[in-house]
Amino acid sequence: MPFTRPALKLTHEGALAMLAAAIARANELGVPQNIAIVDEGGNLLAFVRMDGAKLLSRETSLSKAITAASHRQPSARLNPADEIKLSLAAGQRLTNLEGGLPILLDGVCVGGIGVGSGTGAQDVDVARAGLAAIGARDPLL
Amino acid sequence: MPFTRPALKLTHEGALAMLAAAIARANELGVPQNIAIVDEGGNLLAFVRMDGAKLLSRETSLSKAITAASHRQPSARLNPADEIKLSLAAGQRLTNLEGGLPILLDGVCVGGIGVGSGTGAQDVDVARAGLAAIGARDPLL
Amino acid sequence: MPFTRPALKLTHEGALAMLAAAIARANELGVPQNIAIVDEGGNLLAFVRMDGAKLLSRETSLSKAITAASHRQPSARLNPADEIKLSLAAGQRLTNLEGGLPILLDGVCVGGIGVGSGTGAQDVDVARAGLAAIGARDPLL
Amino acid sequence: MPFTRPALKLTHEGALAMLAAAIARANELGVPQNIAIVDEGGNLLAFVRMDGAKLLSRETSLSKAITAASHRQPSARLNPADEIKLSLAAGQRLTNLEGGLPILLDGVCVGGIGVGSGTGAQDVDVARAGLAAIGARDPLL
Repeated sequence: MPFTRPALKLTHEGALAMLAAAIARANELGVPQNIAIVDEGGNLLAFVRMDGAKLLSRETSLSKAITAASHRQPSARLNPADEIKLSLAAGQRLTNLEGGLPILLDGVCVGGIGVGSGTGAQDVDVARAGLAAIGARDPLL
Repeated sequence: MPFTRPALKLTHEGALAMLAAAIARANELGVPQNIAIVDEGGNLLAFVRMDGAKLLSRETSLSKAITAASHRQPSARLNPADEIKLSLAAGQRLTNLEGGLPILLDGVCVGGIGVGSGTGAQDVDVARAGLAAIGARDPLL
Repeated sequence: MPFTRPALKLTHEGALAMLAAAIARANELGVPQNIAIVDEGGNLLAFVRMDGAKLLSRETSLSKAITAASHRQPSARLNPADEIKLSLAAGQRLTNLEGGLPILLDGVCVGGIGVGSGTGAQDVDVARAGLAAIGARDPLL
Repeated sequence: MPFTRPALKLTHEGALAMLAAAIARANELGVPQNIAIVDEGGNLLAFVRMDGAKLLSRETSLSKAITAASHRQPSARLNPADEIKLSLAAGQRLTNLEGGLPILLDGVCVGGIGVGSGTGAQDVDVARAGLAAIGARDPLL
């Protein structure tokens, strides 16, 4: 019955490296994005809203990041029949929108990245670029 | 890597001219309305609740205006299959109701106008009258 | 520029051991309590409202626990001249009430315990009993 | 009676340059910080929570940034006798805590930077480093 267990934390350096790579990929795609990175407790570590990105996608990007960190899986894996009631019961941060990915390092989920302002596919593409920058496992492969 | 970019702001004179024209159109239609005008950051610039307009449509008119400003397009353009999860993940201001239009001047989105208390078609009609008053592009043409 | 850093997490077993010891101490004092234990991200790990404890102290106990975990110090250490503006600016969870203590194990803050329903001194007394149960450092010694 | 007026927007490049300089200064001081940068509409542009920074200072840093952008002056300039009622009436984002500075470029306020987790003086120091990185006017000189 141990009182503690070892864990791993994403550093702010790691979060900023993810942010930079995600911005670079969004620029390649020509789609300005909101990019949010949270730790495994769902608390914001780093964020950017690129010039021209949709204002309200600030909140959707955060919801996607929190969802991925919470469930330790990509954000569009809920049963569609349950997605709205799950979101409401969870206080709205739980979302079944595409564009949130867990940050998996050394087999541990250390947080989530959420991207919002493009299409679902563009959002996922940018999130994956963020993961690649720190050698995190791609949960879609 | 410039640190600033030129932008355009809607003036309060512009917002009031929109409001006056929208009220005039609502009177012609015989439908009292809530009319909300926000800037490109989603912050309220001008508002009126006409005598007899529905009380709670104050909030829908505002949500429509913010949605149009955020996405730089009319407010009923989301995929219906996504509209509820998008609204929840965005903190509820993002709406797929009709009646919100972006304010496009010289190719720039300087805000949004949202109208609520009539039918969807009446709300859109009144919002368009607001745009016409300042020579803003009609996004539905 | 490492992307991760090692960390320590309080287990639910640890949190339950704290809860049991805090309840036992509250019974000794004859004061029913609300007892909240959060992890280092401010997320609830364990909670009890003892029979007869004040209902609204559920929220104060949680605020105390989050404050202690956030600031890694007991909850009544803010400058009184700043305590109200700090609480308001932080969204009200930051409190200068007595009764919140950080959970410090092996030199790491793994969370916070907050107790509310008694006097300030009773709340602190019960929180310390929780810390002692898992060999956490007493931050008041 | 013009309907628009020319304006200036801080770019995300500008916000990220500020973030990097502020982090560097916080590292020099040995004080991990929360750093929030908002545009002139009070909407978040960029954010980082450094390793070890206080969790709840995420919200205070944001409140400071919004306050500075809104009032176009440093965040501790309200009459102390009014600060609490002003904060409450403004929905709590208006704060009289130190650590928020307006971002003044070419005579225009393009946003605000807010820093929270250190002492007031440390927070201000780090915010000034952010301003210097983009050649913004130092409002404290």
